[in-house]
Amino acid sequence: MRYVRAQTADEIVEAIRSLAVRGAPCIGVFGAYGVALLRATIADDEAFMEAARRVRAARPTAVNLAWAVDRVLGASNPLDAARKIHEEQIAIDEAIGMHGLELVAKGARILTHCNTGPLATAGGGTAAGVIIAAQRGGKKPRVFVDETRPLLQGSRLNYLELRDAGVDVTLIVDSAAAITMRERQVDLVIVGADRIARNGDVANKIGTYGLAILAAHHGIPFYVAAPRSTFDFSIGSGNEIPIEERAQEEVASYAGTRAAPSDAAAYNPAFDVTPAHLVTAFVTEYGILRPPYGESIPDLELRR
Amino acid sequence: MRYVRAQTADEIVEAIRSLAVRGAPCIGVFGAYGVALLRATIADDEAFMEAARRVRAARPTAVNLAWAVDRVLGASNPLDAARKIHEEQIAIDEAIGMHGLELVAKGARILTHCNTGPLATAGGGTAAGVIIAAQRGGKKPRVFVDETRPLLQGSRLNYLELRDAGVDVTLIVDSAAAITMRERQVDLVIVGADRIARNGDVANKIGTYGLAILAAHHGIPFYVAAPRSTFDFSIGSGNEIPIEERAQEEVASYAGTRAAPSDAAAYNPAFDVTPAHLVTAFVTEYGILRPPYGESIPDLELRR
Repeated sequence: MRYVRAQTADEIVEAIRSLAVRGAPCIGVFGAYGVALLRATIADDEAFMEAARRVRAARPTAVNLAWAVDRVLGASNPLDAARKIHEEQIAIDEAIGMHGLELVAKGARILTHCNTGPLATAGGGTAAGVIIAAQRGGKKPRVFVDETRPLLQGSRLNYLELRDAGVDVTLIVDSAAAITMRERQVDLVIVGADRIARNGDVANKIGTYGLAILAAHHGIPFYVAAPRSTFDFSIGSGNEIPIEERAQEEVASYAGTRAAPSDAAAYNPAFDVTPAHLVTAFVTEYGILRPPYGESIPDLELRR
Repeated sequence: MRYVRAQTADEIVEAIRSLAVRGAPCIGVFGAYGVALLRATIADDEAFMEAARRVRAARPTAVNLAWAVDRVLGASNPLDAARKIHEEQIAIDEAIGMHGLELVAKGARILTHCNTGPLATAGGGTAAGVIIAAQRGGKKPRVFVDETRPLLQGSRLNYLELRDAGVDVTLIVDSAAAITMRERQVDLVIVGADRIARNGDVANKIGTYGLAILAAHHGIPFYVAAPRSTFDFSIGSGNEIPIEERAQEEVASYAGTRAAPSDAAAYNPAFDVTPAHLVTAFVTEYGILRPPYGESIPDLELRR
């Protein structure tokens, strides 16, 4: 664990871009505090707005960042607004964990992807939050964590967060998900989200779309845990979600260790879009949303 | 590229176990030469048979190793038998490449997994052999290579072998296969095999089963290129194929760089089994086998 100090707009943007801060809700909380800090340190209004715009656009896929920055920009006291976003996130995650409990039977075998624990939300976590709530509720889930290439958020973060919470957790390479579903009787898959369209299409960490197809093939329910702030009610479908492509270098290496040549051509989308029909249900702070999403998601928009 | 010298039974077994030599046909050729060498250097018959048994059992999943060792053991001149296996493999691979050509349209977009080129067969390759044959035939395929965690045979070997053959090749992380199929209009998937049961079930590198499901979901043909020696006519289905589980350490690290803690619990099957109904066709040195495999595979057994 290493702490990174970010005070200028450059440092805030870099912390988000380099994934020192990652996880859609956590990026939102961080962006909110960041813009509040910039408001306190940049006297010139035009310079401040330019800096805030840069923070807002630091990563394109997760919607929470833009949502949180806009909320701080619209507040009379930016720091209070950022604190409120953070406090709300903690309460929201707790509610997500509580609602998710009903989906997890005692001793359930769960497969999950990427990092969705406290380090990804600044609260208790989304998908990992549901798992940790189940563990605290005495359900003793058995969890398989995808390592989540290329940046290995599963190995580096989710595995540890779940293990530290006392969960029985086993690491697998991403491509072992299919055989794990068949041989290890996975009962459910649960993941987080970076942006959810009005029709229920889900942008999330690369590999999520494949997992959803594999789950459907094996008759395993596929759940997405996310706060209301991850829903983008302004877009009709996943086709409108911009997918960030990151450096080719990430695919050819890990943490500076190279496997392919330095000039290797790679395709490196950081996210993919899972169509709504592959999602069994959403777990939100307002409860479980089930199909038809054409009704349940507009209902969610009205809550608040 | 590094050369490893293996002369004793210990060294031969270690070269196979450590994957200095990998790829089912290549392991077969190597095991054949290895046993011929042991026959020439171990005078005592009982000691020799014990050494040969150890080589034969060095890895459990690929059937070519046992097949090649048995052939050398049954020959009056072991070295001639090993040389013949090698020469045959070269001719077999050429025939596989030739037969595979009919499956590849001009400019086809192909997705492949693991290493199946010359380094995997001691000949021209199986799946990568088909791709290289297509390139030489002027078809200019565009190829996506999975990196193939945990040991990265895609990044380290297949990417290079295809690029060196002039193929337009792009590396992806394994979990990007689904989005690549959807966004990049993949026309076909082609992989190798470690063992094929009489009913057409295929054991191959971990991740193959998931790719076959993803290909079926997207309506993309899924081909397996393998010589007759990879078919195990003695077993009825994939349930009878032993699946090697390798060190948990492989999952927790990347080419020696650790991502998860050293005591991380991991599930690390080196292979998975793809059921026959997900395989569109097999490419063998005798031609293309199509369903019903209950007829075409027994027909293959009779060839020779």
